[in-house]
Amino acid sequence: MTLTLTTLPDVPLVSPGDDLGGFLIAAIERAGIVPQTRDILVVAQKVVSKAEGRFVDLRQVVPSARAEKLAVAVDKDPRLVEVILSQSTEVVAHRRGAIVVAHKLGFVMANAGVDQSNVDQTDGDTNVLLLPEDPDGWCEALRQRLLAHFDVEMAVVMNDSFGRAWRHGTVGVAIGTAGLPALLDCVGEPDLFGRKLRITQIGLADEVAAAASLLMGQAAEGQPAVLMRGLSWSRPPVPASTLIRAKAEDMFR
Amino acid sequence: MTLTLTTLPDVPLVSPGDDLGGFLIAAIERAGIVPQTRDILVVAQKVVSKAEGRFVDLRQVVPSARAEKLAVAVDKDPRLVEVILSQSTEVVAHRRGAIVVAHKLGFVMANAGVDQSNVDQTDGDTNVLLLPEDPDGWCEALRQRLLAHFDVEMAVVMNDSFGRAWRHGTVGVAIGTAGLPALLDCVGEPDLFGRKLRITQIGLADEVAAAASLLMGQAAEGQPAVLMRGLSWSRPPVPASTLIRAKAEDMFR
Repeated sequence: MTLTLTTLPDVPLVSPGDDLGGFLIAAIERAGIVPQTRDILVVAQKVVSKAEGRFVDLRQVVPSARAEKLAVAVDKDPRLVEVILSQSTEVVAHRRGAIVVAHKLGFVMANAGVDQSNVDQTDGDTNVLLLPEDPDGWCEALRQRLLAHFDVEMAVVMNDSFGRAWRHGTVGVAIGTAGLPALLDCVGEPDLFGRKLRITQIGLADEVAAAASLLMGQAAEGQPAVLMRGLSWSRPPVPASTLIRAKAEDMFR
Repeated sequence: MTLTLTTLPDVPLVSPGDDLGGFLIAAIERAGIVPQTRDILVVAQKVVSKAEGRFVDLRQVVPSARAEKLAVAVDKDPRLVEVILSQSTEVVAHRRGAIVVAHKLGFVMANAGVDQSNVDQTDGDTNVLLLPEDPDGWCEALRQRLLAHFDVEMAVVMNDSFGRAWRHGTVGVAIGTAGLPALLDCVGEPDLFGRKLRITQIGLADEVAAAASLLMGQAAEGQPAVLMRGLSWSRPPVPASTLIRAKAEDMFR
């Protein structure tokens, strides 16, 4: 069995309002790639956010008293903390330099995914970028568009880089998916010796996201899209939101 | 840029004392693979543990009072809990069905990696399998052997499947590495617009481990080894132990 991951070359830099789906389809065709069923197109969150115009200019932000107080504790710009809190339902943990929140979309992540890097700060250091509005929905819309254009059932994953509890380093994580089982349920399948029923669930889309992240590196806009070929699965699609552990079941918040 | 991941076909089932390194070299040669510099051989933890004979027969285990008490709380076999505690320095969290510990090797993980699945339980349901003695050391020894045999500087990753805080599903994680920067330090590199110095560290070996896990699936002994080709890096090797966050720096224990 072989998996291949290929960067899509020459995807243009994305600006608000750009037709990112069209850019990706054009890049696939320019590269001479003929899509196949179950090809997975992995797209970096950052370019989706840019296409959606998810910028906030910190000069327009007035921090709340809560943001001011937290900003002192974590040693960050109170306006940035205000934006982070506006995207969150809960502060899970914080310390100097770090805020871990539950994002409104459910993800437990640093800084609510609010990003200051690789943003073209032509007016100074004040633009930040939020997560896309609806990552699963965006992936499904792109999946349908790819199906309409190529007449092939592809899958789509939107990835981001998350830090982890207990481990150093960020890894690619799926924040949106369409057309594949983001969470792969192996409950009830026999093990290698046929004796036990497994109770395992695999974070399949997170593994896809991590693999693609190896090629995107951190210059996610330089290599914003990766095509994975060769993966198979035998379960129906479920979206990336199924990867999120509900608070009531969570030992770590 | 392209990454390829290929399963090594026909690696024999492994028993205690088997020469797993020899099995892997033979499988590479049988498959007609000519190793190249920076090829990464990813090997599943389970087969290394088996080759090292890291079995414990629960019938030989006498649970301590502490294990008996915790076993009631988590609804597990007290002998299994005793084994888990024997491999651990700290219980980080527990609830019915789950114990998260700090393993003696440093990893924060469920059940100290003590595994009851895919173990050939010919004497009934009593054999469990511990993590290898020294995953980074094992990887380095294999790396040196591959270098001696093929005269090529390959890298080695040992992967396992870990659950995560806040997210459902296991993902492949690197518990041992050699020959690559397990934690890739991008501190000080300019971003895409050349304006900012990044403060990012990437869990490179974890992303490699996750990618390989897609091909190994959960029947890790069926597909215990994957060769990744095409990844490049510009930092010196550091072992997988550098991925572990020290307790003093950890917000989640």
